[in-house]
Amino acid sequence: MKDLLAKAETLTEALPWIKAAWGTTVVVKYGGATMTDAVLREMVASDLVLMKLVGINPVIVHGGGPEITSFMERLGMPVEFFDGMRVTDDAAMEVVKMVLVGKVNKELVSAINGHGRLAVGISGDDANLIKARPVSERLGRVGEVEAIDTTVVTHLIEDGFIPVIATVGYGDDGGSYNINADLVAGDMAAALGAAKVIFLTDVDGLYADFDAKDSLISALSLAEAEGLIAEDRLSSGMIPKVGACARALRGGVPRAHILNGKVPHAVLLEVFTDEGVGTMITADGNHPAATESALGAGRG
Amino acid sequence: MKDLLAKAETLTEALPWIKAAWGTTVVVKYGGATMTDAVLREMVASDLVLMKLVGINPVIVHGGGPEITSFMERLGMPVEFFDGMRVTDDAAMEVVKMVLVGKVNKELVSAINGHGRLAVGISGDDANLIKARPVSERLGRVGEVEAIDTTVVTHLIEDGFIPVIATVGYGDDGGSYNINADLVAGDMAAALGAAKVIFLTDVDGLYADFDAKDSLISALSLAEAEGLIAEDRLSSGMIPKVGACARALRGGVPRAHILNGKVPHAVLLEVFTDEGVGTMITADGNHPAATESALGAGRG
Amino acid sequence: MKDLLAKAETLTEALPWIKAAWGTTVVVKYGGATMTDAVLREMVASDLVLMKLVGINPVIVHGGGPEITSFMERLGMPVEFFDGMRVTDDAAMEVVKMVLVGKVNKELVSAINGHGRLAVGISGDDANLIKARPVSERLGRVGEVEAIDTTVVTHLIEDGFIPVIATVGYGDDGGSYNINADLVAGDMAAALGAAKVIFLTDVDGLYADFDAKDSLISALSLAEAEGLIAEDRLSSGMIPKVGACARALRGGVPRAHILNGKVPHAVLLEVFTDEGVGTMITADGNHPAATESALGAGRG
Amino acid sequence: MKDLLAKAETLTEALPWIKAAWGTTVVVKYGGATMTDAVLREMVASDLVLMKLVGINPVIVHGGGPEITSFMERLGMPVEFFDGMRVTDDAAMEVVKMVLVGKVNKELVSAINGHGRLAVGISGDDANLIKARPVSERLGRVGEVEAIDTTVVTHLIEDGFIPVIATVGYGDDGGSYNINADLVAGDMAAALGAAKVIFLTDVDGLYADFDAKDSLISALSLAEAEGLIAEDRLSSGMIPKVGACARALRGGVPRAHILNGKVPHAVLLEVFTDEGVGTMITADGNHPAATESALGAGRG
Amino acid sequence: MKDLLAKAETLTEALPWIKAAWGTTVVVKYGGATMTDAVLREMVASDLVLMKLVGINPVIVHGGGPEITSFMERLGMPVEFFDGMRVTDDAAMEVVKMVLVGKVNKELVSAINGHGRLAVGISGDDANLIKARPVSERLGRVGEVEAIDTTVVTHLIEDGFIPVIATVGYGDDGGSYNINADLVAGDMAAALGAAKVIFLTDVDGLYADFDAKDSLISALSLAEAEGLIAEDRLSSGMIPKVGACARALRGGVPRAHILNGKVPHAVLLEVFTDEGVGTMITADGNHPAATESALGAGRG
Amino acid sequence: MKDLLAKAETLTEALPWIKAAWGTTVVVKYGGATMTDAVLREMVASDLVLMKLVGINPVIVHGGGPEITSFMERLGMPVEFFDGMRVTDDAAMEVVKMVLVGKVNKELVSAINGHGRLAVGISGDDANLIKARPVSERLGRVGEVEAIDTTVVTHLIEDGFIPVIATVGYGDDGGSYNINADLVAGDMAAALGAAKVIFLTDVDGLYADFDAKDSLISALSLAEAEGLIAEDRLSSGMIPKVGACARALRGGVPRAHILNGKVPHAVLLEVFTDEGVGTMITADGNHPAATESALGAGRG
Repeated sequence: MKDLLAKAETLTEALPWIKAAWGTTVVVKYGGATMTDAVLREMVASDLVLMKLVGINPVIVHGGGPEITSFMERLGMPVEFFDGMRVTDDAAMEVVKMVLVGKVNKELVSAINGHGRLAVGISGDDANLIKARPVSERLGRVGEVEAIDTTVVTHLIEDGFIPVIATVGYGDDGGSYNINADLVAGDMAAALGAAKVIFLTDVDGLYADFDAKDSLISALSLAEAEGLIAEDRLSSGMIPKVGACARALRGGVPRAHILNGKVPHAVLLEVFTDEGVGTMITADGNHPAATESALGAGRG
Repeated sequence: MKDLLAKAETLTEALPWIKAAWGTTVVVKYGGATMTDAVLREMVASDLVLMKLVGINPVIVHGGGPEITSFMERLGMPVEFFDGMRVTDDAAMEVVKMVLVGKVNKELVSAINGHGRLAVGISGDDANLIKARPVSERLGRVGEVEAIDTTVVTHLIEDGFIPVIATVGYGDDGGSYNINADLVAGDMAAALGAAKVIFLTDVDGLYADFDAKDSLISALSLAEAEGLIAEDRLSSGMIPKVGACARALRGGVPRAHILNGKVPHAVLLEVFTDEGVGTMITADGNHPAATESALGAGRG
Repeated sequence: MKDLLAKAETLTEALPWIKAAWGTTVVVKYGGATMTDAVLREMVASDLVLMKLVGINPVIVHGGGPEITSFMERLGMPVEFFDGMRVTDDAAMEVVKMVLVGKVNKELVSAINGHGRLAVGISGDDANLIKARPVSERLGRVGEVEAIDTTVVTHLIEDGFIPVIATVGYGDDGGSYNINADLVAGDMAAALGAAKVIFLTDVDGLYADFDAKDSLISALSLAEAEGLIAEDRLSSGMIPKVGACARALRGGVPRAHILNGKVPHAVLLEVFTDEGVGTMITADGNHPAATESALGAGRG
Repeated sequence: MKDLLAKAETLTEALPWIKAAWGTTVVVKYGGATMTDAVLREMVASDLVLMKLVGINPVIVHGGGPEITSFMERLGMPVEFFDGMRVTDDAAMEVVKMVLVGKVNKELVSAINGHGRLAVGISGDDANLIKARPVSERLGRVGEVEAIDTTVVTHLIEDGFIPVIATVGYGDDGGSYNINADLVAGDMAAALGAAKVIFLTDVDGLYADFDAKDSLISALSLAEAEGLIAEDRLSSGMIPKVGACARALRGGVPRAHILNGKVPHAVLLEVFTDEGVGTMITADGNHPAATESALGAGRG
Repeated sequence: MKDLLAKAETLTEALPWIKAAWGTTVVVKYGGATMTDAVLREMVASDLVLMKLVGINPVIVHGGGPEITSFMERLGMPVEFFDGMRVTDDAAMEVVKMVLVGKVNKELVSAINGHGRLAVGISGDDANLIKARPVSERLGRVGEVEAIDTTVVTHLIEDGFIPVIATVGYGDDGGSYNINADLVAGDMAAALGAAKVIFLTDVDGLYADFDAKDSLISALSLAEAEGLIAEDRLSSGMIPKVGACARALRGGVPRAHILNGKVPHAVLLEVFTDEGVGTMITADGNHPAATESALGAGRG
Repeated sequence: MKDLLAKAETLTEALPWIKAAWGTTVVVKYGGATMTDAVLREMVASDLVLMKLVGINPVIVHGGGPEITSFMERLGMPVEFFDGMRVTDDAAMEVVKMVLVGKVNKELVSAINGHGRLAVGISGDDANLIKARPVSERLGRVGEVEAIDTTVVTHLIEDGFIPVIATVGYGDDGGSYNINADLVAGDMAAALGAAKVIFLTDVDGLYADFDAKDSLISALSLAEAEGLIAEDRLSSGMIPKVGACARALRGGVPRAHILNGKVPHAVLLEVFTDEGVGTMITADGNHPAATESALGAGRG
């Protein structure tokens, strides 16, 4: 019975967070260990389904990760990186796309759809969702976002689905581009007017001192986060995440979160509990002032 | 962190129940201690809000309880019971209605609306919701349900509200009738095609032997429940509840639950956890075979 | 046959008024003798039903009147007035609410619903309709309107119902406040963008000289009405009515009417005949220039 | 004041009739003196507008009447009747259509639209509303209804308009047919599921003895009406009206009325007063049992 | 097979034009030989049906042409022109209206409806579509457009119909006015926000030198077209067309076309092929820059 | 000009076919040379866009074809066929899915979306569209359709998109199955209530004698087609097509077509011209009697 009471308290603790988030859109960048570990993937899937059922509209954005290299090697193709980005010729792009769209995307879609007809996996090609342009000649078919046409995403949300988006973009030349999924997530959140964007990574968040595990920063302002970069105090993996957070925040998204996807149900805890997990970046480092809730003014 | 994990597991445990209940209507008979104890009332209110936000449509039905007698005594009116029912003349009916509609109803409405513009309190008079006829000449304005016109209730649900219904009915003679709230709850659940009806009482459920606290029955069939009545093995307070359960089950409602409203968050635990609490009555004593979910066929 | 012709002419006379009012909202402050006289109440009810069926959306606002004092006395509670307002402690507030919501409201709802499933009675608690703040410490739970959230009223109108509103408000402290119904009617008309607000009273309107029965003013400007107050030429009962008219007119309602509810079918005659009855107050004392009708530009 | 009371009573008298008719479709066969007398036409127009505004959907059906002969004579065309029907060759058909569609139809449309953008005049050609076949070779382009496609009429009603229909039909040969407007009205009422069909004529109704002005029949059954024909007791002008009533009644329309359009506001009095005017034919000679009203079960 | 390939290429050639026009409204002034030649009328009709089915919304505007004179002469009425316009007294107006609404309108409606329930013929009287005022006392009931209320036209379009509009207007005096159909077409295109307006005439377009058949101008600016008028280089029949084009262009319509209706399927070729036919007038003489298509940004 | 006339005639020829197909769904099995030849693919894409824009709803179904073998060989995986079907273990299934979903699907999607935001590519995993079960243990993850949930497809159609479906199904075991695309196309057409299903292949249709190129059968009944199989007169490639046609026809689809995708614009010619191309199979070998068109009964 004591156990039951604890359960009831946990469910009740979620209520104010559900009220605040009800009817909003939340973009989740899916990545890291959650992509490769089937157990973590199932957890992320059930967290997303729970969000959807309680009235939040999750939109998932993902890249391809380590599987691309693995397939390219199996196909005997050269794997080259430049400035931390994969040099991508046409043949590589074909493999990138197959892995992203035909494997990674459908693995998450299937995990979600074990719960019902919820997820629909699409890519930047579908309904001309993501238009891309090349980053540099050197990198070939590595692209950056030129424009996002959210028509198909908003239709899928209204139809009751969870869109799962592989970050391939189409270019003026008719070919495809591989785009960094963090940046797409940031831009997508801004384009959709999302209430928050969550980046699932393999670390717990930003550290004031990245050698000191106890220096995890719970909340900071965008200026502070960019200060950490300027002072070279962030790990290299965090720099593009902070850049993507900046895209979202400057595009009007009130909150950006960096979470460790290895923490079971990290998304759930972030969205539905008092503690939250990981690091939250906002425009000014504080919880944004609540706008009028979809449920009207509260009392008292 | 261990604590967080437990929280995450509790939230996750709720997922299959939310999936099953999503989009359904649940009628809750509000009564007993939850009506008079403000702390319990707040808990019921937050449970109902949580249900509403996660896609379940709660409809509350309530009577007046002990407050009616108290007001009648303060007004110096005679209080008489016959066969366990309050003898109700026109003057008494006026008081009944004021207490039900003007006090008990708005207390629950206010508790719910502390969370947002959710509850709307109505009575059987509103939009001709409940038509009543007299039970017997001896009892005066004690009535039973003749017809339910659910128009206003379904409109309020579609408009995003939680209807809270005081069980006063209107009669052919233009006057009002006081109707047993358990029976209205059972009929209302049937009329709305509800997925379940929950009776909040002050006891834990039905007992195989009502002197033995450890003989609480977790689930039984309607035939078994009616057998307990025939064998005179139920407390007198439980007999009308079982009668109301029978009305609902025969009207097509798959499940009826009798819960102890004094258990904190009893409704929540019943709807969102594996254990459930109290006694469940179904047509055959088993969990009803799932009909197709609103989320389509599951997998696996 | 001559009689029939007269009937036809009366019906035809209503046509231009129906055309002008079609699709508009009209707030009616229900009060005075119409609240206590069952015959007059039936007439008001049928007038409101007729308005609804011919495409006008009536919204009724009412207070509690003399019945509150009567119940308080029967309960042996002290009755005290200060500055013309009832001093209201928590115990008195409970009685106020029961009488308003559980008795007066449902009497009018029932009278209307004798014609079909039309009226739905609510109070300021329902869907957080009326937020109140205290007027003064001395008066206890006497409140004034702080905010109106018209969500539930507009939903009820769209669903085909006639909302009947008891003027209890909720406060920051979770408790209720008793608000002057005239002022709520004025504010409600402004919040709903009503085409007119009608105050049903027990006198025929405003008098140029309130000792001279033949000095009834048929139409005047708000400035003129406020001038009458400044010159102390209005009866004390009319002062809050004019104040409420001012709230409505300054909030954009084109016309405010003060009618004698004892005149049979006063509302009907005001809305559907050439003569009108009682006193009309407008911004400038003239009939407001017609805005484009819902039926398009007329001809000729 | 006494006069005002009489007005109020007349308006109130209309209420039960409005309640009963609210949301229903009423087909009015426009004809006789109302077509040629501008004052009567204005009265019919305002009656139809009033019906529309109070929630009834009038649909008007009309033929061409005496104006056709007049134009044919002015054009020097031969005018020939056979069996009471105009022998109509192609040249005559052209004139028929111009008078019906270009003159009679627009005269009524204009009279109605003096009140606002309400009437839309169409013919059987528009949206393939009325398909016709020839009655006999002898009569040329005189047709009878083969099929009615109500699509455009129901769209116009839903769009808030009053359809005014000229009874020209299209044939398999691509040409037009002139169809008796009484019969079209009867068939149209059946096709639309109308609540009643009203025939405006120049006599007061059916007479038990057509020489005795005091023998007007107020209500009779279809069998009785057809009995009067069989016994040769009806004037020749009434026979096709009764035939059209029969088409409507057999097609499910509960009531058919024959009224004298010279009586000012005859339609209004029929629809909105206790007395009614003219003759009502129903399946069994009684007022049809009310089906459930659009406003739900009444009380008492 | 080679033949089939040519067909396929023609259909494919239409694709970009369909994409560009999809969902837009196109006003077609129907006139000249297409009104009197049944074969040309059938072609226009099938072109309009094709436009409708491929997602373009054609709206047809027409006058009466030579048939009016013919009927007036048959009726022995004087036919007088002044300044190129028909002097129109009340009797003439009656004939004008019958020919326009009862004959010319229904001939085109019937030709279209041979393909299905598509066309609905209306006039300026219907739903108060076109309000007119007199041009001059001398001309009697010759009018010009004072106001257009597009309500009925947009409803008919949304309901899936092709509106066919006879250019009779109603005046303040309750009477009708005959309005030049070219001018109505220009104003109607502006009022509807049409993507183009097409004038079907009996000449091929504007000529740089109207004696030289090879000097047809394919495209020019409005300023150039008005320059041709100023220099007296246009035939008199073209001057009102250019005036109507100017009304449309100044009202925001991007393109105006003058086509020879004697060219089989001229409308079709204009809308669906690379070549186009006739003369196009635009604000600056160039193809207007494409606004964003209803299908989103294209690729490449 | 003569050329223009030919173009106009071709466009006009398409009109009756557009009328008949307007608003219907057509399933196209995309396959053979159209999948591998970029020029043919562009043609198919523009044909599908044209269909969509003229009011037909194309739904594309495709398998993977020769590219799967090519990738498997590049990855050094064994390629084995049994009974004409690819033996598919888990590793092979992963490759199948990547090629179908990540390459073939997006190639067609991109070709279509060159025309605007039209195509959305999905697979049987998305929104649990296609549930599969294994065909035999020997074949591993080769599946057959167990159930189709068309929810996402109908939503995409209503949202204005062209669904492009890769024929991977999900199984009870959480894994994927490769399903013959012909059979999915047949079942999908039946599940969607399609008006026709078109199979694009590399041959011209069915031959009465498959050695005689001039024995192509233009139309035949299902019984005749199955007779050809029974008599062993069809090429082996045609047998599953005929089987898929049978599934569609028995599921209520009126027409099944087998076309040569190498014929430029074969789909277009089939849908929009008199000749048609390839072989049509219907229940009885005749053109199915037209059901009532979406445009109503025609004339004449």
